[in-house]
Amino acid sequence: MVSAEWQKLIDEKRASLDSVIPQEWRVPGNVLAKVSNEATISGLTLLKESNLLNAREQELTEKYDATALLDLLATKQVSSVEVVTAFCKRAAIAQQLINPLAEMFFDDAIEQAKERDGYLACEGKVKGPFHGLPISIKDMINIKGQFANLGYVSYLKKPRASENSVIIDILLDGGAVLYCKTTVPQALFVMEGYSTVCGTTRNAHNLSHTPGGSSSGEGALVGFRGSVLGVGSDIGGSVRAPALCNGVYGFRPSSDRLPYSKQQQFFPPGWPSITCTLGPLAVSARDLTLFFKHVLLAEPWKVDSTSHAIHWRELPPVKTLKIGVWRDDPAFSVYPPVSRILSSAVEKLRKAGHEIVELEAPSIVEAVITSFKSFSLDNNATIFKYLEEGGEDLSPALSVIAQALKGPAATLEDVWAVNASKESYREEWARVWRSHNIDVLLCPGSRNTSVPHGMYGNPVWTVIWNLLDFPAAVIPYLKADKTLDKPVDGFDPEAVHGSPGSVQVVGWRFQDEEVLRATEIIARDLHSQEGKSSVMPRI
Amino acid sequence: MVSAEWQKLIDEKRASLDSVIPQEWRVPGNVLAKVSNEATISGLTLLKESNLLNAREQELTEKYDATALLDLLATKQVSSVEVVTAFCKRAAIAQQLINPLAEMFFDDAIEQAKERDGYLACEGKVKGPFHGLPISIKDMINIKGQFANLGYVSYLKKPRASENSVIIDILLDGGAVLYCKTTVPQALFVMEGYSTVCGTTRNAHNLSHTPGGSSSGEGALVGFRGSVLGVGSDIGGSVRAPALCNGVYGFRPSSDRLPYSKQQQFFPPGWPSITCTLGPLAVSARDLTLFFKHVLLAEPWKVDSTSHAIHWRELPPVKTLKIGVWRDDPAFSVYPPVSRILSSAVEKLRKAGHEIVELEAPSIVEAVITSFKSFSLDNNATIFKYLEEGGEDLSPALSVIAQALKGPAATLEDVWAVNASKESYREEWARVWRSHNIDVLLCPGSRNTSVPHGMYGNPVWTVIWNLLDFPAAVIPYLKADKTLDKPVDGFDPEAVHGSPGSVQVVGWRFQDEEVLRATEIIARDLHSQEGKSSVMPRI
Repeated sequence: MVSAEWQKLIDEKRASLDSVIPQEWRVPGNVLAKVSNEATISGLTLLKESNLLNAREQELTEKYDATALLDLLATKQVSSVEVVTAFCKRAAIAQQLINPLAEMFFDDAIEQAKERDGYLACEGKVKGPFHGLPISIKDMINIKGQFANLGYVSYLKKPRASENSVIIDILLDGGAVLYCKTTVPQALFVMEGYSTVCGTTRNAHNLSHTPGGSSSGEGALVGFRGSVLGVGSDIGGSVRAPALCNGVYGFRPSSDRLPYSKQQQFFPPGWPSITCTLGPLAVSARDLTLFFKHVLLAEPWKVDSTSHAIHWRELPPVKTLKIGVWRDDPAFSVYPPVSRILSSAVEKLRKAGHEIVELEAPSIVEAVITSFKSFSLDNNATIFKYLEEGGEDLSPALSVIAQALKGPAATLEDVWAVNASKESYREEWARVWRSHNIDVLLCPGSRNTSVPHGMYGNPVWTVIWNLLDFPAAVIPYLKADKTLDKPVDGFDPEAVHGSPGSVQVVGWRFQDEEVLRATEIIARDLHSQEGKSSVMPRI
Repeated sequence: MVSAEWQKLIDEKRASLDSVIPQEWRVPGNVLAKVSNEATISGLTLLKESNLLNAREQELTEKYDATALLDLLATKQVSSVEVVTAFCKRAAIAQQLINPLAEMFFDDAIEQAKERDGYLACEGKVKGPFHGLPISIKDMINIKGQFANLGYVSYLKKPRASENSVIIDILLDGGAVLYCKTTVPQALFVMEGYSTVCGTTRNAHNLSHTPGGSSSGEGALVGFRGSVLGVGSDIGGSVRAPALCNGVYGFRPSSDRLPYSKQQQFFPPGWPSITCTLGPLAVSARDLTLFFKHVLLAEPWKVDSTSHAIHWRELPPVKTLKIGVWRDDPAFSVYPPVSRILSSAVEKLRKAGHEIVELEAPSIVEAVITSFKSFSLDNNATIFKYLEEGGEDLSPALSVIAQALKGPAATLEDVWAVNASKESYREEWARVWRSHNIDVLLCPGSRNTSVPHGMYGNPVWTVIWNLLDFPAAVIPYLKADKTLDKPVDGFDPEAVHGSPGSVQVVGWRFQDEEVLRATEIIARDLHSQEGKSSVMPRI
């Protein structure tokens, strides 16, 4: 239990968030009454019942991906004010239904949108590759003048950011409009959506489900279409888990390609663990490319000393891919919907002309053990110290892994052991890659689809690629279906019925461009229907 | 003192090396009599006195750089057998005068050269970008069937390599011919040329001088023109120090761009220290590019799990550069010839039209302290264990740093501290880079030119770039001159008179291509005379 003093800060924080939502964007009481962490209803259903969006707002927030919106904006078919207002409104509704926001600054955003529209009118050209587009931002990324609580009560005493993170400067220089920051779970270290500060963020498609984490609010907001493009971060699956839980696209690039500087402090400098990376959440595969490409074209290494001077590489188009398929691991075997959905994807891709190779993969157990050893290379128990400062209890999800994270005191020899395991494990994977000369690997993104709050568990199918530093994207595809997925030990078809399914596309370290190209191709082929291709799956 | 058993192995090793040199390549006794570690004579003078090379052999080994030789080979103006034989002969003479070789396999090389000539004759095209060119290899790199002693007596019991290092496979696939391996100092950890196994390697230009280290034999052999292109490795200056001591070019790329796998073990896996990288030593700037570019074009990441999938970038030519100049640091101030030579370079570059910016640099002391802390992150005292196994005494140069390397037992917290210092130091440098938006930085490569054996000391001006992981090349330029360089405390103009001078060109991390381009431009402008440009400085 937090002290009365802290509770006051929490209450003020929540009240201050609530106060930003204008009366005309308020969800009617009869709809609000249906909102709870146990309700199995979809946020999108409640949105419809709220009857707040007009046809144009609905069109702007649902019909287009970021690439299409940017085209409409650049050709003046829509103004930035109109687009931004529509997304602010939909985000405000999302906030009332699924609680994905940690900060809202809609007025500033609409002012910024006016500036963009003025620029286009005066200069006759767009300000940059993100001209006029609203982009949502994960809480840990600093926006000048905004708070960043990182899911810690104790961080409520931290001042407003005095400067932007580097990624923010690049997005703003590129013409983007910022309108909100999105929630993260307690300590940023679990795949759930709960923090003592902001409470529970709910899944866009099922309020009783977790949105995944730690980019919980991003996943939920983009899944709700309260954002068309968001920036998350990923150290163990924190972009991909919320993406797949909410039926959207997510990409974790190789480390140090996207600029990471000047964020709210997650760990003090020097932690010799897995490198956290920023990454986009989006409603189409091509939007992942759009984001990554244009941030790199801004040459972030010139303004961010953590950012590698590795230029964007434009790849030639290809018609078909050689795709390695890794279906399962005996130690963390995937549940029926995941396995069925992956099989369906493989068959569809085979029919589309891609060459499919079934892989014999190294055990995932080694990856999980080494990753957790790596996370526990911190004898100061930093995250627990920050939690204690705010006097808050551990959330259930964090309690489960607390012991592993605290562990016995780690030594220099543990760092050697982690490094050595990682190298030998990467070499094992290199043999798999080489023996088949695959373009990319296709595998599950998690053991299950989205699950009830608190049930996500260990993100084994994502953390493995963080450990190896391989770029990886998730593609939403199909849904869990109780008529097809039979119950097995630990899996209840009823509980996940209708949850978004997904597949994960993985490439070799620094082959981000190859992964993005493959993700676009695979997404197109998975979502094509009777010869018609679409850049967006239906929500 | 080593035991009689080990001494027997050392004697056998040396005898076995000596036995490879054919009678007709033997240096006459009257010349051999002049060879000692105290002789201030140049190896090139003794070569002339030996009168063993005919005019054609002299031309092939002195007149061309690797790029020019490859052109002659590809156009059949010279056969690989002729080129390889000439370099084998000159290397054999080098061995008798300056002792740069750890392994020689001239017969195999000439067989390989025949195969290359046959290939060109039959196929009508070259085997690859290194077709027919002899390339010398630092001892730690494995060549199937050859030993790799790494400067450890105890390693004399290790078997012949059962497979090639990845870099060797790439060079051979590219048509290169391998003919020798070159010496390293004891434990590979000093900038000198002495090991108990091979004895003293001497500087090509002054037998009483150190060749630098740890690519000691490479520097000496390329300086002697017993090799036109060699492969060294660099963790603190080990390519650049021998390059600048012997008046040749050397390049330390950003880490993990060149393939590093399957070498003789230097440290057990997992050492969380500075990453060692391979790098070329050459007689022209464009040969550094040649080597780096063509190894990358072979896409080493497809065969080496340590190698980043960062493709070679072909840069557009530029006429002039914005060059930041860092002349000195008060804590490790450079001696008169180094400072004079750098000033001369700056003036020449200014006259050639380049924009020169004098930089205010962060203190080099922080780099030195952090680097050594990083090297000492090893509680097993690995190198001392390997030395003890062979019962050998520490060389004087290693004795000096032994205490710093052994240090007190290091902890996990030391790893954090090293990482944090490195990050903040890189950020300090980022501010310098950004505030002037320089293309490259020009600075000293060492405090002095080449010096008498045992006097090289701490490689502060090179290790700083390893710590920051910045690509850096040295360019030979001018010489120490007692008529111009006045004595100061710690500097004896007489002792270094005539030693090769140099400058160092440094770029931001992963801007290897920019550094190589700038190195070619700067080398051209420094060595142009009365409007005539030359790719090679005179030896």
